[in-house]
Amino acid sequence: MGDGERPRVVIVGAGFGGLTCARRLDGAPVDVLLIDRHNYHLFTPLLYQVATALLNPSDVAYPLRTVFRRSRNVRFRQAEVVGVDRERRRVRTATGEEIPYDRLVLATGSVDNYFGNEEVAREAIGLKTLEQAVRLRNHVLACLEQASVEADREERRRLLTFVVVGGGPTGVEYAGALSELLRLVAGRDYPDLARGEARVLLVEGRPHLLPGFAPRLGRYAERALGRRGVEVRTGVQVASADPGSVRLADGTVVASRTIVWSAGVRPDDPLGHDAPRRRSRRLEVDQDLRLAGAAAIFAIGDAAGAVPSGPELPMLSPPAMQAARHVARTIRDEVSGRRRDRVFRYVDKGTMATVGRGAAVAELQGLHIAGFVAWLAWIFVHVYYLIGFRNRILALGSWGLNYVRFDRPIRIILQAQPDPVAERVAGRSR
Amino acid sequence: MGDGERPRVVIVGAGFGGLTCARRLDGAPVDVLLIDRHNYHLFTPLLYQVATALLNPSDVAYPLRTVFRRSRNVRFRQAEVVGVDRERRRVRTATGEEIPYDRLVLATGSVDNYFGNEEVAREAIGLKTLEQAVRLRNHVLACLEQASVEADREERRRLLTFVVVGGGPTGVEYAGALSELLRLVAGRDYPDLARGEARVLLVEGRPHLLPGFAPRLGRYAERALGRRGVEVRTGVQVASADPGSVRLADGTVVASRTIVWSAGVRPDDPLGHDAPRRRSRRLEVDQDLRLAGAAAIFAIGDAAGAVPSGPELPMLSPPAMQAARHVARTIRDEVSGRRRDRVFRYVDKGTMATVGRGAAVAELQGLHIAGFVAWLAWIFVHVYYLIGFRNRILALGSWGLNYVRFDRPIRIILQAQPDPVAERVAGRSR
Repeated sequence: MGDGERPRVVIVGAGFGGLTCARRLDGAPVDVLLIDRHNYHLFTPLLYQVATALLNPSDVAYPLRTVFRRSRNVRFRQAEVVGVDRERRRVRTATGEEIPYDRLVLATGSVDNYFGNEEVAREAIGLKTLEQAVRLRNHVLACLEQASVEADREERRRLLTFVVVGGGPTGVEYAGALSELLRLVAGRDYPDLARGEARVLLVEGRPHLLPGFAPRLGRYAERALGRRGVEVRTGVQVASADPGSVRLADGTVVASRTIVWSAGVRPDDPLGHDAPRRRSRRLEVDQDLRLAGAAAIFAIGDAAGAVPSGPELPMLSPPAMQAARHVARTIRDEVSGRRRDRVFRYVDKGTMATVGRGAAVAELQGLHIAGFVAWLAWIFVHVYYLIGFRNRILALGSWGLNYVRFDRPIRIILQAQPDPVAERVAGRSR
Repeated sequence: MGDGERPRVVIVGAGFGGLTCARRLDGAPVDVLLIDRHNYHLFTPLLYQVATALLNPSDVAYPLRTVFRRSRNVRFRQAEVVGVDRERRRVRTATGEEIPYDRLVLATGSVDNYFGNEEVAREAIGLKTLEQAVRLRNHVLACLEQASVEADREERRRLLTFVVVGGGPTGVEYAGALSELLRLVAGRDYPDLARGEARVLLVEGRPHLLPGFAPRLGRYAERALGRRGVEVRTGVQVASADPGSVRLADGTVVASRTIVWSAGVRPDDPLGHDAPRRRSRRLEVDQDLRLAGAAAIFAIGDAAGAVPSGPELPMLSPPAMQAARHVARTIRDEVSGRRRDRVFRYVDKGTMATVGRGAAVAELQGLHIAGFVAWLAWIFVHVYYLIGFRNRILALGSWGLNYVRFDRPIRIILQAQPDPVAERVAGRSR
């Protein structure tokens, strides 16, 4: 490892897995380089609130350089890693730079998976990145602007019909929040729009919403969304899409200018075809999360499939963070000469999802809760995490305080994608 | 006016002038349609703080539909007005729509003026719109990211040299805040950047900074900026620019990847060449701010030049707001059958500009103040306006409160322009 220097650990990806691993290696006798294509960590559980105009982008995005400002051994670099040279132990960036490593942690997460459906991929807006969330906010607001002056009835209906594909936690949370946003603004901000005029459709291919949860909770979510005006269509998949409509597998055609995609993700790592993979395309790892056959490379989070003795790990933040802690411990052991064979075991502490204000579902240690109590638990956990995280890591205060204290909290590089409807409303495309 | 209906007042532009006029006509016996190409009012005095990462875009942008949510006679529409048919009393939008009016108020403001220098126009980033401010924030942060890994010394220097053109209040405020941002992050967020390595140059063609203020205050600003590490170059204009450098009129070439433009604006109204204009290209108005020769059209703010008896009005928010109140009174008089000949007179209540934290200049009723006391006055006025405005109009609270109260405060449509350096850092252009 190195030439008498401290071993160099390169972590690719600063999501929950990569960030946790870097923090756990803070202070260890290694030099850590954390690399991400964005200059911020994204608090994805609240991304749908950015997309529905409740939170600012900077509320859920923490500049990584600020997070590690006081660290002596963790550095950050914004770059896109496009390849790994396992022989020479280097990662290659999109700009052609080569960065050497002694230990590599791949925490590269996942991207939207359209299962090869190019049409849908072209029309849909995902809900995985901050750019997508801001684009979706722009798009929905622009649809309302355009609809409120649209003379053509058909077009008006298209602009006011929002199709959300995928009934997992993200789709359920976004559909509920979108419906609340639409009811909030119709008749008030947009006096020309009647209250029930905007429609939200939630489409899920499997028989129930929230497939990862107990069926009872999925049925509860369906009823709760129904009460909030969301039309839920289960057991049917999206077949195709064009700029003005979505066609379902059962032949139904929904006239709409908006398709939101949360129906699937696929791992996104810089290793090529020769890397050992599972059927899910996630990387094959051994029992301490090392890439099969590569002692210097670890894979965690969405990138890694399962340890040999266990089932496929869910693509959620808790397994990513647990794996990150495991890998950090393993690296600490190795550099200090300790040899311990640790077996990674994922402990499921529970999952939760909100359906709307006052309604959520939670599975905690075998307990299934639905309704207001679950919602209070959700609020508690997320407010605790969000505020706690921001305050602990960034020590954010109010504007006045920041101004007096010299701080510049909004240090995120956020390039929003132009949106066709927003361009049209603003008169930029004629 | 109309067919027995209430007279229809169309206000084009929702800056300080248009917004004030609409609010003053709230409750009057007229139907007001406020039109802007954005769906928000922009609090421009603090825009430079968005560009320097202190404020969120939504802190300085207020969704106009929300502002007039409770109004019975003021409506908003997002559209770009591209022409006025004075014969048929209609405005034409970019999408070809025609909107009739009985009274038209042109409050269309101004845009960056590059005085025909296409090269500089292509390379520079302005500081007039929210998109520009966000792009500038992205760009500066991306320059720091790129510089911290740049092997080529020349390129590193270019990335760390920031040229601000124009020594008026905007240029002075931005240069001071940028210098503070750079000193804050160098060595801390960017351990590879030395503290004095980043340079900010402020270039002003006239002999002193802040040409609109007393010379003493301009000299103070120059010293105060100098103490903050800003290199001030007065008495020289920018001659040309290319992607890697700026050439000044005296032959100096500054290697830089950043030109910020605040050296001039020009009025931007939808009237064509046949409209009566002053040399400044601002519209010729008579003593009650009516377009010369057009009884149904008023022009206020940056769009209008001067009333016949007075000097050219400064292109600032106070004259725009005073003119707006004057026009609203005139329209109220006219629709209620009162005929009063009011002459518009601009009352200069003073102007101020910050140079940095703890330093500002102010001219108030003939009083010239510079230093800490002026800064306290600036803080007081702006915190009062910003917080007061937001609270009075939008009743904004904290996140938790908004979540419980169902509100969605961030309802702005903001499409940021992609920035070349930010694209490069994120690996999107190879």
